[in-house]
Amino acid sequence: MSGETTRPLFARVALIGIGLIGSSLARALRRDGLAESLAGCARSEATRAKALELGLVDSVYADPGEAAAGADLVVLCSPVGSYAAVGEAIAPQLSPGAIVSDVGSVKQAMIRDVGPLLPEGVDLVPGHPIAGTEHSGPEAGFAELFEDRWCVLTPPPGTKEAAVAKVASMWEAVGSRVTLMDAQHHDKVLAMTSHLPHLIAYTIVGTASDLEESTRAEVIKFSAGGFRDFTRIAASDPIMWRDIFLNNREAVLEILQRFSEDLTALQRAIRWGEGETLESLFRRTRELRRGVVEAHQAGSFDPREPEKAEAAAPVPGTADRSAE
Amino acid sequence: MSGETTRPLFARVALIGIGLIGSSLARALRRDGLAESLAGCARSEATRAKALELGLVDSVYADPGEAAAGADLVVLCSPVGSYAAVGEAIAPQLSPGAIVSDVGSVKQAMIRDVGPLLPEGVDLVPGHPIAGTEHSGPEAGFAELFEDRWCVLTPPPGTKEAAVAKVASMWEAVGSRVTLMDAQHHDKVLAMTSHLPHLIAYTIVGTASDLEESTRAEVIKFSAGGFRDFTRIAASDPIMWRDIFLNNREAVLEILQRFSEDLTALQRAIRWGEGETLESLFRRTRELRRGVVEAHQAGSFDPREPEKAEAAAPVPGTADRSAE
Repeated sequence: MSGETTRPLFARVALIGIGLIGSSLARALRRDGLAESLAGCARSEATRAKALELGLVDSVYADPGEAAAGADLVVLCSPVGSYAAVGEAIAPQLSPGAIVSDVGSVKQAMIRDVGPLLPEGVDLVPGHPIAGTEHSGPEAGFAELFEDRWCVLTPPPGTKEAAVAKVASMWEAVGSRVTLMDAQHHDKVLAMTSHLPHLIAYTIVGTASDLEESTRAEVIKFSAGGFRDFTRIAASDPIMWRDIFLNNREAVLEILQRFSEDLTALQRAIRWGEGETLESLFRRTRELRRGVVEAHQAGSFDPREPEKAEAAAPVPGTADRSAE
Repeated sequence: MSGETTRPLFARVALIGIGLIGSSLARALRRDGLAESLAGCARSEATRAKALELGLVDSVYADPGEAAAGADLVVLCSPVGSYAAVGEAIAPQLSPGAIVSDVGSVKQAMIRDVGPLLPEGVDLVPGHPIAGTEHSGPEAGFAELFEDRWCVLTPPPGTKEAAVAKVASMWEAVGSRVTLMDAQHHDKVLAMTSHLPHLIAYTIVGTASDLEESTRAEVIKFSAGGFRDFTRIAASDPIMWRDIFLNNREAVLEILQRFSEDLTALQRAIRWGEGETLESLFRRTRELRRGVVEAHQAGSFDPREPEKAEAAAPVPGTADRSAE
């Protein structure tokens, strides 16, 4: 990627959406002096007022077109379902040389919904910073969110290299590692690493919510047993995730089908008492965890929990006991 | 529960199994001087040597019966599937007044497999400290593991109150909050809070393991998107979890059936583009997360992640974005 470090990289950056990611990007761009001016767009009056109050942007707009006017970089930070409407609003305001990017978790939808609307000379550089928390809104953001995280860029064929390099420079400047990928492949990989895990977390928390009241109270009380991890994931923003599932339908359904088949096989093994089938899978999954740990992506949920023992060999048949 | 704090509480404690939980309990009992002497039992020579080397126990045994001889408290810290054999080995060695307890995640199995074997005058006080990590073995334990965690005791009808109080005192002394529960109810609640989450984590990591090599490499690379959380859970001890599923079959299958129905409903909603169904569930699950947070059980996965924004209202339609 580009090693360009001239600052500011952009004269006017317009952030369409000022939630967790938008406000984090605003904070990071401002901290590092990467934009001469920052325009923010939010539908809600409260969000616009909050963004100004927090000093996240120089100006706020309700209309994406007004925010985008005169911008050399427009970043869509709104739910994927809003992209077509945002694209229509901003397209007439864009001048040749401008770049349109985004931070969405589905990349084919960006190319499909926004690409055809852009005028000649405007480049589309879809982006996905793989970073976030379960919290939402402009106050939840922080400038360090992107540090040591991957940012995937999926420019469609024909995108100017200089435009891709400039967006890459921005993400590298805020601490991310940038990688290029085909949009379809991105959507398939993310269906496995993010979309299916979220769908499952939402489902299991929903299943627990439907339990009779007395049991539900105890499920909450004893949630440390593994379930708590799922409730955190299932606290993620509803609109954002609705749009992800609706806009990455094929990849999510394909991977969900595989998961369901695998779950049915385990269900059968439990019903028929096939311990070897269970144990064999449970050993195999440890291998993949090792890969994740080695990829330096793994973190500990519990700050008190030492990672040091990570590589310790299991001692089957003794008093081994695992995740709470 | 009892407020008894006389130390040591026990003359000789035998820990059958010296893995994560057994070794943590040994460390805590030793630190607090709760046992005059500690005997450890492990099938593996390496584990016995390690336990002595780490100074976890005063003596080690390969045979549970020898470890239990003369003990006034025997705690089964081995996988649930070993309980029947352990029970047969220890029963002839127990004197009236002795207490047999355990730390397993399934409580009806303890009563079913061990209860009938115990001689007259020996009390059965099944226990389940809801604490742990994904690490295994005697080196993974630490004395603070049980602090501020629940420990559920499920004494069968007829158990002497003094025996229950003594076991409760031990757990309270090592920092746990003790609660009593019917064994069947425990197994149902834990099927939801712990067993199903683990089964699902194992399944999804298995599904990912079966992907073609190129995609799997990227799944590992970009695992920060939610999947990483599942790999941690799915790194848990294979033997322990095999035994949990085989010994809590009915409760796990019942809750798994509900989960599968709910997942199928979501799958259908995605296929047919029913955004309202998705959004409605995703909002509902946030409620349960609030309950979990309010129960002071919720922690942040990422030490850098502030819990402060937990209660912040979502701002739908703006740039909200959630769990990485």
